[in-house]
Amino acid sequence: MSEHEFYMNLAINNAKAMKGQTDPNPLVGSVVVNHNRIVGVGAHLKAGEPHAEIHALRMAGDQAKGGTIYVTLEPCSHHGRTGPCAEAIVKAGIKKVVVATLDPNPIVAGNGINILKNANIEVVVGVCEEESRKMNEVFNKFIMKKQPFITLKSATTLDGKISSSTWDSKWITSEEARKDVHQLRHENVGILVGVHTVIKDDPELTTRIPNGRNPIRIILDSTLRIPLDSKVVTDKKAETWIFTSKQYSAEAKEKLEQLGMKIFVTSGSERVDLHGTLSILGEHSVSSVLIEGGGEVNASFLTEKLVDKVVVYFAPKLIGGKESPGFFAGIGIEKMADAIDLEQMNVEKIGKDFKFTGYPVYNA
Amino acid sequence: MSEHEFYMNLAINNAKAMKGQTDPNPLVGSVVVNHNRIVGVGAHLKAGEPHAEIHALRMAGDQAKGGTIYVTLEPCSHHGRTGPCAEAIVKAGIKKVVVATLDPNPIVAGNGINILKNANIEVVVGVCEEESRKMNEVFNKFIMKKQPFITLKSATTLDGKISSSTWDSKWITSEEARKDVHQLRHENVGILVGVHTVIKDDPELTTRIPNGRNPIRIILDSTLRIPLDSKVVTDKKAETWIFTSKQYSAEAKEKLEQLGMKIFVTSGSERVDLHGTLSILGEHSVSSVLIEGGGEVNASFLTEKLVDKVVVYFAPKLIGGKESPGFFAGIGIEKMADAIDLEQMNVEKIGKDFKFTGYPVYNA
Repeated sequence: MSEHEFYMNLAINNAKAMKGQTDPNPLVGSVVVNHNRIVGVGAHLKAGEPHAEIHALRMAGDQAKGGTIYVTLEPCSHHGRTGPCAEAIVKAGIKKVVVATLDPNPIVAGNGINILKNANIEVVVGVCEEESRKMNEVFNKFIMKKQPFITLKSATTLDGKISSSTWDSKWITSEEARKDVHQLRHENVGILVGVHTVIKDDPELTTRIPNGRNPIRIILDSTLRIPLDSKVVTDKKAETWIFTSKQYSAEAKEKLEQLGMKIFVTSGSERVDLHGTLSILGEHSVSSVLIEGGGEVNASFLTEKLVDKVVVYFAPKLIGGKESPGFFAGIGIEKMADAIDLEQMNVEKIGKDFKFTGYPVYNA
Repeated sequence: MSEHEFYMNLAINNAKAMKGQTDPNPLVGSVVVNHNRIVGVGAHLKAGEPHAEIHALRMAGDQAKGGTIYVTLEPCSHHGRTGPCAEAIVKAGIKKVVVATLDPNPIVAGNGINILKNANIEVVVGVCEEESRKMNEVFNKFIMKKQPFITLKSATTLDGKISSSTWDSKWITSEEARKDVHQLRHENVGILVGVHTVIKDDPELTTRIPNGRNPIRIILDSTLRIPLDSKVVTDKKAETWIFTSKQYSAEAKEKLEQLGMKIFVTSGSERVDLHGTLSILGEHSVSSVLIEGGGEVNASFLTEKLVDKVVVYFAPKLIGGKESPGFFAGIGIEKMADAIDLEQMNVEKIGKDFKFTGYPVYNA
């Protein structure tokens, strides 16, 4: 690990510690070093409060002069509550700035760097870039697209099945892996399934870990055939938002609204329009959604290229069956050469199971 | 790593170096230590030549006296070409014997240990046991069951598909993973597929690596409908053995035999009898078979509990499709609780792909 990476890692660790408390702002950390000693550390704690660099510079005080500042995100150039951070860095007498990632918004990316360079400050960009970008992957998408970051989660046997041919699926993965899924639910603002899953399994879709935050339950239901006695309708444990198509039943809509459900009618004539769904969710500040759908819902999101991240838990077992369902159904992709590639693959052992994480690259 | 593990690892490494040259004998390594110095190393080199302990004791000479010998396999108690190794150890004046695994044959297991204990030699059993047993997994099964050790290999997308819905499968995995498959072919005495694969893909089933040994090509074909112009029939690159059922065509049998194929008629009335097939292979000294079948052949072997080891290469891509085939077809197992568990799972990155290896435990 280089000297730059050492300090940037500390900045990243401080930034990550604030996960869940900076929304809608990104996680940012900063470290100030002078004569090989750390003289200041900082992180963005809460929207409306100072940026990470300001905290770190304040802690450093006079010792910032002539020093180096590490920041996980390009210092801002805009006049917010604490002024442009780039100008504060210039004023503090910093000689060198090391940045992990540029601003995710291309319209302003580079502006902060330019202020620094114009003040004859040496600037290094790209140290620990990937880790820093991943740390804010949800924020980065939401700020740019105004749509939620979509994580598709599934759990399969090693032969790719999400249930047996008789639809038995309890349990594929170990308790440890199922607990990890609840952590994913905790980290996402919304959780999405198709109405078929509600009818078949009647799930709660809540977060069953200590201090777990329940996501908003988002149900795709083209006709509003969701059972009025299903748990997501009756249990009041979290909000339930139902997205439907033009085929919806007006009678069902009225009943569901009386029961406190929010109903959104998308422009889809027969099926729920997914792009419209994500835009509506974005307008309602839902910055992240976890899809725990069946094979058909997953296939719709994948073939419409709407999935940003894939998480699959593989259980070390084989169930078999030509008719046993997998997690990506539909008609699939015709040519192997056009398959969706998963990049930055990571595999981690959780209990007896293996958790794969990757980022789709849509080829066809 | 303990002292025992350190020396046993050296013995295992020496044993493994002889892979492919000891058949039909197992891989065995040995180390003699006296006063914290290695005074002898040995390995079994070739059937008919001395066992590993004899080589190590000879190298140690007088320095074996009072020393410790490490052996990956229990010293033998039978009078072979070099006499019972257990007696040679006693005669050499060894004070302590450290053994990784007992003899795989329960009829003689413990006999060598008893000779040593009766001579007041201290005996430790079980150091690096799992690794030593795995090193001889093929031998251990073959010696006991007189049937080949069966490895089922497949390559799938991360959503469990071995081809797209249009049967396109070129290529699922990377070049590195495909090369690794050829190493598997090299290590197996036979390679097995169903006639459907021959008809559909016309594969060579040869080993395309430098100095690669071509396995015997074993085809399951209940009626002998294999095309007479298929590569495995015409190319003479390796032997081709065809296993059939009572439904076979006598005319086809005659033609195939004229072309140099070996035909084995099993007792199966409509399908090839798999147990019979494995017994015949065992009688013909085929100690290991790699199954590279399609979903149905794989399903037959798995549901008849005949697979000893599973190797699956996962490519980081998604192809989807309800109708796209997986590697374990058939009707599968009804209940998730009855799924085949895979134990001693190992995952290894090969190129862009992930190689999973596990040992089936049949529950139902």
